Amino acid sequence: MTTRVRDLDESGLLARIFPLLPAGGATIIGPGDDAAVVAAPDGRYVVSTDVLVEDRHFRRRWSTGYDVGVRAAAQNLADVAAMGGRPTALVVALVVPGDTEVAWVEGLSRGLADACAVTGAAVVGGDLSGGEMLMVSVAVHGDLGGRAPVLRSGARPGDVVAHAGVLGHSAAGLALLEAGVARPDDGAGSGAPDAAPSGAGEPIARFVAGFLRPAPPLEAGPAAAVAGATAMLDVSDGLLRDAGRIALASGVVLDIEAAALAGDRRALASAAAALGDDGAPLRWALSGGEDHGLLATFPPAAALPAGFRRIGSVRATDGAPGVTLDGATPPVGPGWDHFRA
Amino acid sequence: MTTRVRDLDESGLLARIFPLLPAGGATIIGPGDDAAVVAAPDGRYVVSTDVLVEDRHFRRRWSTGYDVGVRAAAQNLADVAAMGGRPTALVVALVVPGDTEVAWVEGLSRGLADACAVTGAAVVGGDLSGGEMLMVSVAVHGDLGGRAPVLRSGARPGDVVAHAGVLGHSAAGLALLEAGVARPDDGAGSGAPDAAPSGAGEPIARFVAGFLRPAPPLEAGPAAAVAGATAMLDVSDGLLRDAGRIALASGVVLDIEAAALAGDRRALASAAAALGDDGAPLRWALSGGEDHGLLATFPPAAALPAGFRRIGSVRATDGAPGVTLDGATPPVGPGWDHFRA
Repeated sequence: MTTRVRDLDESGLLARIFPLLPAGGATIIGPGDDAAVVAAPDGRYVVSTDVLVEDRHFRRRWSTGYDVGVRAAAQNLADVAAMGGRPTALVVALVVPGDTEVAWVEGLSRGLADACAVTGAAVVGGDLSGGEMLMVSVAVHGDLGGRAPVLRSGARPGDVVAHAGVLGHSAAGLALLEAGVARPDDGAGSGAPDAAPSGAGEPIARFVAGFLRPAPPLEAGPAAAVAGATAMLDVSDGLLRDAGRIALASGVVLDIEAAALAGDRRALASAAAALGDDGAPLRWALSGGEDHGLLATFPPAAALPAGFRRIGSVRATDGAPGVTLDGATPPVGPGWDHFRA
Repeated sequence: MTTRVRDLDESGLLARIFPLLPAGGATIIGPGDDAAVVAAPDGRYVVSTDVLVEDRHFRRRWSTGYDVGVRAAAQNLADVAAMGGRPTALVVALVVPGDTEVAWVEGLSRGLADACAVTGAAVVGGDLSGGEMLMVSVAVHGDLGGRAPVLRSGARPGDVVAHAGVLGHSAAGLALLEAGVARPDDGAGSGAPDAAPSGAGEPIARFVAGFLRPAPPLEAGPAAAVAGATAMLDVSDGLLRDAGRIALASGVVLDIEAAALAGDRRALASAAAALGDDGAPLRWALSGGEDHGLLATFPPAAALPAGFRRIGSVRATDGAPGVTLDGATPPVGPGWDHFRA
């Protein structure tokens, strides 16, 4: 018989979850008390929060509990990396309808654990509640290792614009699923997407996996800080929109070079062909969100750290800050908004 | 014309919220980047999370946005106090339907700010999402000031059991609202409930206010740590149930003295009379949740810090850990569960 959340009391559900959660090296007091205690050897900690809501950020018919756990952790971990930090600890608030299978919640826990494992971060606490829809709210913490945090506001004219991770894969995966051209199972065994695009089109399973279980280049964040990055953020709402955030905060123009995206467009060609949409690769690369790559600016003399590739440059502006593609207004609009559409 | 959340984009809504949020002394980098940076002078930080879900933890016909903000902050701040810490920073994930009035969200922000103001804690970050129901998820952080955290597991035979804050006020307020004997507006001007019960029955407005806007005795937490408290937690699910958690974690029996609750019962008599329920005061005092007072154990020789009063003692057990009332099984059952009922 299928065990559902309402068949257990809170302590019974916690007893299923706790053994699945990762313990981390920074944990002093873990789950089970009023609060956890986490080491902050740097004398500061980085903190951010991101929430995933059913039917807004994921659909249960596409995403397993495991997928949602990976994604909830990954997008939070990317925020710490984007400050130049290393993740240490997560707390997780979970709202779950009573008819949800306990196996779904166990899968979520395993997904959180697997996404954290590569970083050594722990899940140190949480809260459980019933509710009419699934909701996973994560707060993530990290350590800066004595370095200054890398903000959005430090880009300077002459800097190199560089990106680590994939562009447009998540958007392509979503489009493939929405069109019914791919099924969620297609992405099951394909693991993490490649950090850099390659060849004349990735297997479309890669895009489905990239949408369901994004794999941000977390190590590239601290590496960028060490290399002297002047500004950085994680690309959650699309390259143009997030580049615009650096431009606005820094009072500069970021000029993206279309030629630098040629490899991304080639990688995405297989997905575009499957959908019969020739214009999709450029659109996905420029506007697709949720890949959680890192966009950073570096002084011109800096050696780009592993994982980063140059995609443009920073220039001064007499007018409004903004983003250009080869010096002109980009041909596609920026990202999307949470409260409309 | 009423402005609703769907009338603004995310940055427009954030522009309404940011000016209302408190800045704190520990904030190094506040809202607006991928993550905040907060000082941890102690080299450790305390962290916990609690979520409030519409129609589970609050009802919009009873609670204003301001009320929900106060409550979301208060129950989280109490978790830091219960470790013996001082709150420094909150991050807030808010899920809000598009038809919600922007004024409700502004009220929530003011409530968070007012509840934080007494502690000097800041709201340093957040996330906004649309969704079918309102949900407020807070993660709270605090500083231990060089002291050891006060866990649930340190109670020893011979210790004094003590409580700071009110008992049963929130449960009484809920009962008055459910019965239609009081209206939410009745609690509007009455401020925070008294820290200690008094007289032969509080004005019933106090209970309504105590339910809508709990005011935990936050200063009593660090004071208890300084005074040598051996165990502590915040009473969120009722005195008996939460005392049972200390008992279980410490492997002891907590014996509560009924005479010590006489003042609480007298204070609650007015609410019981209004409902014609003579047995309610003892039931509310023993089993009512959500007051977020602090329950602690102290060595017998310790001077109880301001705000705490003795309500019982700790004894060893050969059998199961647990809670007794005057040495016998309590006459009412413990708390409640989130996934049933």
